[in-house]
Amino acid sequence: MQIDELIHGVLAGERRSVARAISLVEDGDPGLEALSAGIYAATGVAGTIGLTGAPGVGKSTLATELVRAAREHELRVAVLAVDPTSPYTGGALLGDRVRMQEHATDPDVFIRSMATRGHLGGMALAAPEAVRILDAAGYARVVVETVGVGQAEVDVAAATDTAVVVLAPGLGDAVQMAKAGILEIADIFVVNKSDREGASEVVRELRQMVQLGGVREWQPPILETSALHRGGVEELWSAIELHRTYLQTSGVLEVKRHARLLREVEALAAERFRVNAARTLAGEPQLAADVAARRLDPYAAAAMLVRKASGS
Amino acid sequence: MQIDELIHGVLAGERRSVARAISLVEDGDPGLEALSAGIYAATGVAGTIGLTGAPGVGKSTLATELVRAAREHELRVAVLAVDPTSPYTGGALLGDRVRMQEHATDPDVFIRSMATRGHLGGMALAAPEAVRILDAAGYARVVVETVGVGQAEVDVAAATDTAVVVLAPGLGDAVQMAKAGILEIADIFVVNKSDREGASEVVRELRQMVQLGGVREWQPPILETSALHRGGVEELWSAIELHRTYLQTSGVLEVKRHARLLREVEALAAERFRVNAARTLAGEPQLAADVAARRLDPYAAAAMLVRKASGS
Repeated sequence: MQIDELIHGVLAGERRSVARAISLVEDGDPGLEALSAGIYAATGVAGTIGLTGAPGVGKSTLATELVRAAREHELRVAVLAVDPTSPYTGGALLGDRVRMQEHATDPDVFIRSMATRGHLGGMALAAPEAVRILDAAGYARVVVETVGVGQAEVDVAAATDTAVVVLAPGLGDAVQMAKAGILEIADIFVVNKSDREGASEVVRELRQMVQLGGVREWQPPILETSALHRGGVEELWSAIELHRTYLQTSGVLEVKRHARLLREVEALAAERFRVNAARTLAGEPQLAADVAARRLDPYAAAAMLVRKASGS
Repeated sequence: MQIDELIHGVLAGERRSVARAISLVEDGDPGLEALSAGIYAATGVAGTIGLTGAPGVGKSTLATELVRAAREHELRVAVLAVDPTSPYTGGALLGDRVRMQEHATDPDVFIRSMATRGHLGGMALAAPEAVRILDAAGYARVVVETVGVGQAEVDVAAATDTAVVVLAPGLGDAVQMAKAGILEIADIFVVNKSDREGASEVVRELRQMVQLGGVREWQPPILETSALHRGGVEELWSAIELHRTYLQTSGVLEVKRHARLLREVEALAAERFRVNAARTLAGEPQLAADVAARRLDPYAAAAMLVRKASGS
């Protein structure tokens, strides 16, 4: 498929083109630059929602329920499940998506797991581009679900308009989440599996944590859901839409997005440079040998590498 | 304190200097380059051990027990607990370290929580330099404990000689860990809290996962511990030492460390460049405005930025 054709397909909201375009992002395909340039003007329309939390809290189930809610409100919706590449998992992960099969035939729903096999900068840089593809394809809401609770996942979630942090009883308490640096990115907290023992304790802990954060213009609500039984999902949807309205009317949305784009440009530039640096380093066996022999320390070697890679 | 004095102190294994040097790393202090250059020749001696796993599996308790084991084998030992910066936590995290107080008066034990407030490249680049400081200070074993189970944490753990992946019953099963990309970096698996219900199931799941990975030269053992009751810790210590012997006799250690150092040099160079790029971007308001107005896409803007930042 030619890139022009692909761009046309994405802008027309054609499923096959959207899927193919996201694969280009995963692979870090050279066609990505032309694709990015071709769709960019059509982006910035979708409301993006991050869904993050420890493994096992029920993020996938919650994502499925958000899809249902979006459809009830007659909005086109996409889910992007961002998974790190793992030789052990691969296709197996799709098993999780089985639950979403009920939406598989709905032309206004797009669901996709995404790994980052070749994209420079990993998922932190690949995810925003994939989200832009879905945005350009006319999905009014894009849910980005991350796996794990580490720094990279926090970065991906923080790069959405509305970051929803999901907890569940018995799966790492609020203190543990705080350690992972995840609490302060939350626009909305969800305690899922609210029918389980310990749920009210998690809510109480969270409330204390949020109070420690002081008074803010947007005070993150703490909601309880039981996604498997569809409890509390409509309230979550309303909270997300309320947050979106707040972002738009306050002007915070524009400020946040502008800052995010500039950071992304910087990071993309650094990754481009890194490719140059790796090539330069490969052509400097003496430098590598000096580092290995502990004659030249990594910081000094990096400084030399920047000079050499910039000069060429 | 002058940098020369600091280097001297670190090389002499002086606690106060070591603590101060790690603070320089945390802050991304300009003195870091001179420090790095001054200690590098004395590094590469320590055996480094990564301890990673979901929040709540008992990594801190296990780290304390490894300290005890190291001391029983008359080795100087350091623990570096790598925590992401979080305005909500800060000093509170040290509460976890209370358990380690019993080692506080032992001059051959050094325990430290580390955040990454100012270091470029975050903990993935700060942690290796902090480990080198401890290495240069003469700690024979350095345990690096990470918080969370995300990509950045996996990277930090993978940058040690022996990566120990810790699981516990009821805290995210093996499938969930596999999702986080954590299983394939493991040199040793530990199922902690082995006295709890479900432990044998976690072991069985892990065994299946490991088998999926095929036959490897080093087959990661699966150990059970009950760190709070000191069960299985000596076996874990033996497994770590056995892995170290394997790395040394096979030549894998040298190969791994060399590759790691080169990747680190590349990443440090990219971060240095990123600083240049940010400065250049700040001086190009038109470029930023074009990105914000969706006239210039992030990939094209990054390419322009690389040209401009390299040219200057």
